[in-house]
Amino acid sequence: MPKHTHDRRAFVRAAACLALAPLLGLPTRGRTQPPGAASEATELQRLVAANRILAHENVVDAFGHVSIRDPLSPTRYVLARSRSPELIELGDLMRFELDGTPVDERGRTPYGERMIHGAIYEARADVRSVVHFHAYAVLPFTISTVPLKPMIHTAGLLGAEIPVWDIRAEFGDTDMLVRNMAEGRSLAKTLGQNTCVLLRGHGAAVAAHNVKAAVLTAYYLQVNAQVQLQALALGAPKPLSPAEIAATTATQLSPLSLDRAWEYFCARAGVEPGKDQ
Amino acid sequence: MPKHTHDRRAFVRAAACLALAPLLGLPTRGRTQPPGAASEATELQRLVAANRILAHENVVDAFGHVSIRDPLSPTRYVLARSRSPELIELGDLMRFELDGTPVDERGRTPYGERMIHGAIYEARADVRSVVHFHAYAVLPFTISTVPLKPMIHTAGLLGAEIPVWDIRAEFGDTDMLVRNMAEGRSLAKTLGQNTCVLLRGHGAAVAAHNVKAAVLTAYYLQVNAQVQLQALALGAPKPLSPAEIAATTATQLSPLSLDRAWEYFCARAGVEPGKDQ
Amino acid sequence: MPKHTHDRRAFVRAAACLALAPLLGLPTRGRTQPPGAASEATELQRLVAANRILAHENVVDAFGHVSIRDPLSPTRYVLARSRSPELIELGDLMRFELDGTPVDERGRTPYGERMIHGAIYEARADVRSVVHFHAYAVLPFTISTVPLKPMIHTAGLLGAEIPVWDIRAEFGDTDMLVRNMAEGRSLAKTLGQNTCVLLRGHGAAVAAHNVKAAVLTAYYLQVNAQVQLQALALGAPKPLSPAEIAATTATQLSPLSLDRAWEYFCARAGVEPGKDQ
Amino acid sequence: MPKHTHDRRAFVRAAACLALAPLLGLPTRGRTQPPGAASEATELQRLVAANRILAHENVVDAFGHVSIRDPLSPTRYVLARSRSPELIELGDLMRFELDGTPVDERGRTPYGERMIHGAIYEARADVRSVVHFHAYAVLPFTISTVPLKPMIHTAGLLGAEIPVWDIRAEFGDTDMLVRNMAEGRSLAKTLGQNTCVLLRGHGAAVAAHNVKAAVLTAYYLQVNAQVQLQALALGAPKPLSPAEIAATTATQLSPLSLDRAWEYFCARAGVEPGKDQ
Repeated sequence: MPKHTHDRRAFVRAAACLALAPLLGLPTRGRTQPPGAASEATELQRLVAANRILAHENVVDAFGHVSIRDPLSPTRYVLARSRSPELIELGDLMRFELDGTPVDERGRTPYGERMIHGAIYEARADVRSVVHFHAYAVLPFTISTVPLKPMIHTAGLLGAEIPVWDIRAEFGDTDMLVRNMAEGRSLAKTLGQNTCVLLRGHGAAVAAHNVKAAVLTAYYLQVNAQVQLQALALGAPKPLSPAEIAATTATQLSPLSLDRAWEYFCARAGVEPGKDQ
Repeated sequence: MPKHTHDRRAFVRAAACLALAPLLGLPTRGRTQPPGAASEATELQRLVAANRILAHENVVDAFGHVSIRDPLSPTRYVLARSRSPELIELGDLMRFELDGTPVDERGRTPYGERMIHGAIYEARADVRSVVHFHAYAVLPFTISTVPLKPMIHTAGLLGAEIPVWDIRAEFGDTDMLVRNMAEGRSLAKTLGQNTCVLLRGHGAAVAAHNVKAAVLTAYYLQVNAQVQLQALALGAPKPLSPAEIAATTATQLSPLSLDRAWEYFCARAGVEPGKDQ
Repeated sequence: MPKHTHDRRAFVRAAACLALAPLLGLPTRGRTQPPGAASEATELQRLVAANRILAHENVVDAFGHVSIRDPLSPTRYVLARSRSPELIELGDLMRFELDGTPVDERGRTPYGERMIHGAIYEARADVRSVVHFHAYAVLPFTISTVPLKPMIHTAGLLGAEIPVWDIRAEFGDTDMLVRNMAEGRSLAKTLGQNTCVLLRGHGAAVAAHNVKAAVLTAYYLQVNAQVQLQALALGAPKPLSPAEIAATTATQLSPLSLDRAWEYFCARAGVEPGKDQ
Repeated sequence: MPKHTHDRRAFVRAAACLALAPLLGLPTRGRTQPPGAASEATELQRLVAANRILAHENVVDAFGHVSIRDPLSPTRYVLARSRSPELIELGDLMRFELDGTPVDERGRTPYGERMIHGAIYEARADVRSVVHFHAYAVLPFTISTVPLKPMIHTAGLLGAEIPVWDIRAEFGDTDMLVRNMAEGRSLAKTLGQNTCVLLRGHGAAVAAHNVKAAVLTAYYLQVNAQVQLQALALGAPKPLSPAEIAATTATQLSPLSLDRAWEYFCARAGVEPGKDQ
């Protein structure tokens, strides 16, 4: 389907699916929410938008996925069924226990790598959204010894340390996928209190306080990788200082910056942004 | 014609052509098929989709082609007439004997380089789809001494060895095209039991068990080339281990992965995916 | 919203807003104008176009902004509210005193970095348009020691010197943003009588005699950065001579060249060019 | 205007303009033509298509132009008025004497650099189409000492030698533009019997036997530059041999190859290809 037709139809479908959410077992009201959070329907709509944005901006291709912690239960998360992010709609969203057990399977096949999400939510109570992706500009840094560092103010939110996790170190030769909680927990341990972790020969994972921040971080991880690679060709690039990293992160994650970016990304991807209440 | 208009019309045309297939001499039923294979109509529709996907993803440009072994006869293959993959429709598909003789020419001009396909099918009973292409990111590796190696898990399916074939070694100065079975067989011999072969100053050929796998392999050959080039600039990149190559290949070629990618690529290129029965 | 639908609607909206301008407090006639200038309505329409062009050509992304000196008052400037340039419409335009005080706030949030604009207009009476942006190709030059120099005739208008301003030198660790007039004036001082200034780890600012020139300069700063980076990989590139820089600047800023580029950029971005009177 | 709308309307306009050609002073019949040539109406339609293709493939941007030798008079050429190639329609085409004098000016402003075209037609009776362009990937080779060489079979048609012309050598500091016949003839002299010439810090010119070949050559000059730059990063790339260059040129310029590429490029750019008679 051509992109724009697809996008136009998606509005209609999204609207329809939203109305159908209760019938589909996606509860939309009457539950307790964390203070300050958007409604659950809004959070789900934003998760759909996040999928489509990441695809539109080439952060993900056929593979990669994004989740949110379940707005209704901190011990669950919401993630699409096994389908490319470009094509995700509300009806594709599934709920999982932190150990990866589907709550509402209904014949849908989950992503094989959902343990990345569960293990990070398990280890990090502060995290409410996770993206796993293979952006091509990031991949060179996963197989080389040059550490990826925030070089530009829009990428300060990547954090001062971006560790690299090599599945082979603990699990030997595998198909490189994070397929069980042992592997997921090993990855989460390497992530530690950082925002980003690279997976050797594979990609990256980003852990953020909300889905808008997760999308913005994944996007600028890609931009920063390209800028750093080119700057290395020019010679001895200056990274941000630790204090600059802290200050630029606070700025990028402020509502002013985050909402401006979200409106922009949604418009480009042709998706509804998910209204604040 | 603008891409999206073209794509929308293509649905209509594809549907019409499918109905016309028997009239066009493209048999669609009543023949014996290999066990587990899709119907012949589906296989032809997928071949059209493969052409359009490869064009949409810039794996091919005005030049390049993709074939399948004839679903109705293992000693024949199906390949479009001499036309850019971006524009291929069902009515452009022709059948050839393995030596390149057209079975149903009807005034249509075949590709000059179809011998690449016939020679590989002749040498490799396991191969049911071949792509020949000149993706720009791959070309530098065809004229340099750095071997192209799978560096990322999505590219494990390229295989551990990617040999380079130089037409000049055996045939001297030519127009670089594989124009006869002697040249095709020389190329097939260099390919050996591998999945990919590079052609010096020319491009690549990919041999796979089905058309979805062929498209995915050609696509990630291009991605891996870009990643490897950039990683070389960072210094001493780590490739996948042989056991990782084997394991990631099995994963990428599983239906779960292959079908997810196929749905994604078809949606982006605006083509019907060709239904399973 | 898909790009093209967005663009088509934008025509309608632009037309409607233009009619509404007086009601919105955007005066459109009856004031004194500098000799040779376009009407104020035309200048505002061009500022909207400039926003959309810079977004379409990837000079800006979610962030970045472009302003004009107020056609009605040399001690004011016009700049959009805090919104991505891709989405800017006439109703988003605000007026500011040179010190950044909003003249017509009406509940709209201004850009945090508007001081870049005010400080440059304050220091440079010849400047009537300013762009601040983070084009990815330019960023490597902001963190390296290789000076960005005009290498090609279309980029002569960048000027012979492109200084780099590091906010840390005078203001220590910050969030890198130019948030007050002290910082803005420091930046304007480094800019001096040049056309372009780079901001370390941040981006660039361009100061020009009109909005068309500002857009063209920002665009070719990006192109020149890419060309110079690649030429450095080839070795010892020859820059333009000072006399060539002067002569090519005069040519690029002539109406023949500027209007040709403006028509082209507007057509690509799907915006009305703003008619000459 | 968004690309696709623009393209759709262009069909209508092109059709209308074609019918209006006689009224516009663009003769369409009754004159002697070189044997084997298309009709004049077809040649003009192809020149419009060439403009749009070169823009669509990013060979030209706001600047650059393409001409044909006048089908009705070998001492004249046809070139658009001063307008970006993306926007050219039949009514923009003008006729010039070889010295650049407009034949049918009618208030239209010609390109300042049209002398490139006239001087090449004057020096080379075999040339029937010329493109002048500033493709970004080509520019690094105009300011460095690494000679651009055909590295891939689709680029054999660039020819074995691609000389670099530096306007400063003979004319000192200028605005880099080829503004008179003296400069044009100097450039044509450096071009000699080759197909391509680079202009230092400026771009390239391509001289071909017909407009399809000119477009294909300009396109693959850009592709080859990118491939060669990347291959240099890998180390010591092998160029085509002189005999391979000759043989691949013959193949690429054969109707089979040229017409396939033309159909493809026209479809992508959304323009009518101009029918053979």
